Amino acid sequence: MTDPAAPPMPNPIAELLTTYNALNSSIDELTEIPSPLEFMRYVSRNRPFVVRGGANDWKATQTWSVDVLKERMAGMGVNVAVTPKGNADAPVESEDGEILFVKPWEEEQDFEEFMDFVIQQEGSGEMNGEVRYAQTQNDNLRAEYSALFTDVASSIPFARIALQKPPEAINLWIGNSASVTALHKDNYENIYVQIIGQKHFVLLPPLAYACVNEQELRPASYVREGGELVAKREDGDRVPFALWDPDGLGVGTRYSGLARPVRVNLGKGDMLYLPALWHDMEFGGSFYPLCGFARNVALNTFVD
Amino acid sequence: MTDPAAPPMPNPIAELLTTYNALNSSIDELTEIPSPLEFMRYVSRNRPFVVRGGANDWKATQTWSVDVLKERMAGMGVNVAVTPKGNADAPVESEDGEILFVKPWEEEQDFEEFMDFVIQQEGSGEMNGEVRYAQTQNDNLRAEYSALFTDVASSIPFARIALQKPPEAINLWIGNSASVTALHKDNYENIYVQIIGQKHFVLLPPLAYACVNEQELRPASYVREGGELVAKREDGDRVPFALWDPDGLGVGTRYSGLARPVRVNLGKGDMLYLPALWHDMEFGGSFYPLCGFARNVALNTFVD
Repeated sequence: MTDPAAPPMPNPIAELLTTYNALNSSIDELTEIPSPLEFMRYVSRNRPFVVRGGANDWKATQTWSVDVLKERMAGMGVNVAVTPKGNADAPVESEDGEILFVKPWEEEQDFEEFMDFVIQQEGSGEMNGEVRYAQTQNDNLRAEYSALFTDVASSIPFARIALQKPPEAINLWIGNSASVTALHKDNYENIYVQIIGQKHFVLLPPLAYACVNEQELRPASYVREGGELVAKREDGDRVPFALWDPDGLGVGTRYSGLARPVRVNLGKGDMLYLPALWHDMEFGGSFYPLCGFARNVALNTFVD
Repeated sequence: MTDPAAPPMPNPIAELLTTYNALNSSIDELTEIPSPLEFMRYVSRNRPFVVRGGANDWKATQTWSVDVLKERMAGMGVNVAVTPKGNADAPVESEDGEILFVKPWEEEQDFEEFMDFVIQQEGSGEMNGEVRYAQTQNDNLRAEYSALFTDVASSIPFARIALQKPPEAINLWIGNSASVTALHKDNYENIYVQIIGQKHFVLLPPLAYACVNEQELRPASYVREGGELVAKREDGDRVPFALWDPDGLGVGTRYSGLARPVRVNLGKGDMLYLPALWHDMEFGGSFYPLCGFARNVALNTFVD
């Protein structure tokens, strides 16, 4: 029973995006740690929040410095992701024009040498074709960085109690302002804590999916070859990945203009709750010459 | 870059329904009132639950009977919805074949007379073309039934604390097994409490929308005319309403077969949490010859 005089149906994707934007304009800034119930209200609405200074009383926040870290990790090796431009796990156009999903070259480096490289680069402002970022996500703070684990909370109690699960992975990330994490999403509830320096997040809600132009990309990895880092195609399944960047770079879709990215800057001691399935892009502080640390307490709660 | 050899895209609506069905097969049955945090976990997942005997200690549950109610409400009038077949606010096919959204005839009746009618009809099993149902949703337990309000909880604490709102409406509904509430949804978080008798719910999650065949129906109301109840068309906006019935009646869509309705039977003292936007169809107990009562604590939490 289609009425020929009826107005055209609104595009449901455009309507979803504009309705969401109208109802959700900013993210909450708390000044105190939430209770489990208060946290669950955010989980329920799938909305991020920031707790300014939420980790100010952590021993890590109060005592860590480059020198302290070098002393505590003296003589130890850590896994370091190496890329020519700071773009680990990111879409990169190859010489023949194909957009590949390129993983970083990974190598074991002496922790002190790694730190010296990161600090020196930040101070000089020159990239010289090599950016180093300690960014493993395999629960590294309870493995290769276990010497430092006693200085951070062993769980985030409000999240552990609300979600009824201990942290699935606790990760420490160290980099400088040259490191950018490309827009991506994952299936975990995440809590980031900034220990030193700054980190800048650009966030998109899960329903902005139509904006990010996800495509199936052929996998590749950087390989050290004669002093240079070269992207090499790999066998294996294609990787679905966003080609669009909320800062306006990359190839968008007809809906990208309807995305309203939320920008959040974390400073020392700040805590960010990033709900499962949100898209986030991160980059280090460019004017504060130090390493950026993040703590990622990931609890798999996607499948209920 | 469409690959002609690629398999056809799965129908996203069918995939949504089958995935949801695989992840959500039944609803939880609790034996104790949840804490606000436990409740919020259900709100977060938009999942109903039942608390068996959750209102066993209410004065209403412990003391109400037909005689007690008639005594407490003696001499008072109440709003009663009258229909020929128990189908208030329901799609009804008119004589010329148009499906109308038909509201009941509403009239003020003496409470004792209303109760005698409801009980007598349930006992006799004969409808005789008139079904009466006290079903106003205008916070009636704090208005026309305020004489009874002291016997029920003035709020449901776990919901009030979790949702940070007092009940928006508290309603008492009285009917017999002839009354059926057609499949519908609303924007409120609902908690139903059965005080006497039984009520049978058939529930569908919000994402079963594609199954229910919602159509814009012309409004109508029953009118008493010469001893008969006749549906009369009304002016005013058309009403979007489900034509399909999870019991298999009504006209479905290509997706109706993928719906997995959940059936919940409430007995005396049982409590049901029905999340906002769920579809529900309700009918009274057909073998327990008494009136069915429900308590509806509605908290508008749709817009966050």
